Amino acid sequence: MGPGPINADPRVLRAMSAQLVGQFDPAMTGYMNETMALYRGVFRTANAATMLVDGTSRAGIEAALVSLIEPGDRVLVPIFGRFGHLLREIATRCGADVHVREVPWGTVFTAAALEQAVAETRPALVAVVHGDTSTTLAQPLDELGAICARHGALLYADVTGTLGGNDVDVDGWGLDAATAGLQKCLGGPSGSAPITLSTRAVAVLDARRSIEAGLRDEGDRIAASPIRSNYLDLAMILDYWGERRLNHHTEAGSMLYAARECARILLEEGLDAAVERHRLHGAAMAAGLRGLGLTLFGDQSARMTNVVGVEIPAGIDGDGARAAMLTDFGIEIGTSFGPLHGRIWRIGTMGYNARRDAVLTTLAALEQVLRRGGHAVTAGGGVGAALEAYAA
Amino acid sequence: MGPGPINADPRVLRAMSAQLVGQFDPAMTGYMNETMALYRGVFRTANAATMLVDGTSRAGIEAALVSLIEPGDRVLVPIFGRFGHLLREIATRCGADVHVREVPWGTVFTAAALEQAVAETRPALVAVVHGDTSTTLAQPLDELGAICARHGALLYADVTGTLGGNDVDVDGWGLDAATAGLQKCLGGPSGSAPITLSTRAVAVLDARRSIEAGLRDEGDRIAASPIRSNYLDLAMILDYWGERRLNHHTEAGSMLYAARECARILLEEGLDAAVERHRLHGAAMAAGLRGLGLTLFGDQSARMTNVVGVEIPAGIDGDGARAAMLTDFGIEIGTSFGPLHGRIWRIGTMGYNARRDAVLTTLAALEQVLRRGGHAVTAGGGVGAALEAYAA
Repeated sequence: MGPGPINADPRVLRAMSAQLVGQFDPAMTGYMNETMALYRGVFRTANAATMLVDGTSRAGIEAALVSLIEPGDRVLVPIFGRFGHLLREIATRCGADVHVREVPWGTVFTAAALEQAVAETRPALVAVVHGDTSTTLAQPLDELGAICARHGALLYADVTGTLGGNDVDVDGWGLDAATAGLQKCLGGPSGSAPITLSTRAVAVLDARRSIEAGLRDEGDRIAASPIRSNYLDLAMILDYWGERRLNHHTEAGSMLYAARECARILLEEGLDAAVERHRLHGAAMAAGLRGLGLTLFGDQSARMTNVVGVEIPAGIDGDGARAAMLTDFGIEIGTSFGPLHGRIWRIGTMGYNARRDAVLTTLAALEQVLRRGGHAVTAGGGVGAALEAYAA
Repeated sequence: MGPGPINADPRVLRAMSAQLVGQFDPAMTGYMNETMALYRGVFRTANAATMLVDGTSRAGIEAALVSLIEPGDRVLVPIFGRFGHLLREIATRCGADVHVREVPWGTVFTAAALEQAVAETRPALVAVVHGDTSTTLAQPLDELGAICARHGALLYADVTGTLGGNDVDVDGWGLDAATAGLQKCLGGPSGSAPITLSTRAVAVLDARRSIEAGLRDEGDRIAASPIRSNYLDLAMILDYWGERRLNHHTEAGSMLYAARECARILLEEGLDAAVERHRLHGAAMAAGLRGLGLTLFGDQSARMTNVVGVEIPAGIDGDGARAAMLTDFGIEIGTSFGPLHGRIWRIGTMGYNARRDAVLTTLAALEQVLRRGGHAVTAGGGVGAALEAYAA
């Protein structure tokens, strides 16, 4: 019940125990095509360039940034938590001229502030986190695509924390690139990064494409500004997933099975139903924590559905309580980073764990741990408030 | 029965269906420490810095090169097949001043030629493929470490194709960095890259370490020449696997279970026994192919144990025969790249497929496919020759 990674759905675990097939076996390329189609549904996009990067969600972020950013490009990063700092860090390593705007952790940007920042910095690319699990807040993105389009900037969003359990609308919002991982609302293991790219983003890649020595044909151009990474070169990864099927990495077969099963489960349930399920159980958890007399962290109107921050009460040893939750009840909850380390816990309700029994058991256990830690709690206050939230 | 990826060992597939635990759960960090110890055994090394990179074998290669190469560094790449070209490509993207030496595909370098090349180019790093599956040959590396040490160069070797089924002796040969994947002799899926680094290599990383914004303490230095990648920054990955346990990527739990199980299976069998098994079944396959009247490709004295190249006989449609093997017998064999595409088939006997029944069934099927393709073959010639090899 941490902020992710979380328990995987048992169906996903079983999918990974299927035997492998060859990398260019028609069965395998069929699974790849199926996976592309499934993730178009998950991302709500018609983008042909929708596929997997073989690495964790961080590999997906770096693939997007290193492939879209040419050294010297101006990049704007609005930061409202730790993962915004990560985007800044990666963009800097890509050689970008990075400009940042920051708001205090626990808040998000207004659309007007974002537009002003874009107008002031005139970036080639805006890179933003959608849901920053470090603060549990989600930056509303429904207006940012139009802002970027007006100012001629590409828009990249890291939707790792939100995809599948919060509204994410790639085409509706005008995102040019979005990347995720499986280990949050998708209910799978870390290690595969779904990605989608608009035609505008693909045009940038097309201009930077360089086919590697040993695979190059006579007619293949060499790019003026080749992508600095080979492994995370999205132009090459597209040539592998696309019709040309040019050899690049050896697709991680078991992780592809996992990613495919995550999307199948999600689309069987229905995206809207899955988001609503996350909203329901997240709200019940939040109500239960308040029912235990605890104070929630941050602007609750911008909170992610799938994770809630709660202030560690005075007098309670935060790490000791987390250890007791894990050791005595087998339940993991998280702390946070930087200014919030030791100040808040983060409790997740996502993917396979966005369930009534998981919420109520966590609240029951936390009540016991708080009481034994010397904090006064109303008996049944957490579970009772959560049950009321469910009843409403 | 291709050159890899191949069928995974069923034990590895089952290991991946185990439930996940949190990233910093003591159970998980325990598995990480166990995995480090296991791979020290697999690589035959005492290197403390032995761990996994979360990506395919290509991610491991790029992690080693981008972390060890500073832009402008002179790098020597001896090339004897397609994957040597890949090292050149990646080193170039890392900003290295790359010098290459090439020998015809199907041959390898003498130690004298390597020493001359090192003396002429005075590189900071020599990057070489051990077994280049594109040609099926393995470059002997037992003298190269001493050569590099004499000339003050670091030595990196890509042992993806060979580890676990051919002699690989990281400490004995003086390799400073070696990377692999699971999808060859280790009998697992692609998607995790074991890596080991000598203390000399770690010293290079220490000089380039930069801890990312949001995790940095007051005393943490900022490097003069930071590593260009965040995801593949081995200094950061070491800080995550090491005692400091600094958050970096979210470890790919299921792939870690797979990597751990691959190593457990291998060390239970014994490294020497596993290499001997690959040698036995590889030799039987080679004998069987000759028994079918086919000609083996390349310098057989330098052939990898686990894959053999065989010339496609005149009059046979190579891709048609491969399709018949797959469709009619459920057996995959490979073609090759570049100058060898359509000229040779590559047949693997590795990992879980280094088995007598797999060898004999493949030879029996190939005989049928060749005959139906109009090529004259002695009935039973392949299986008979393989059985004789086994009997000897």
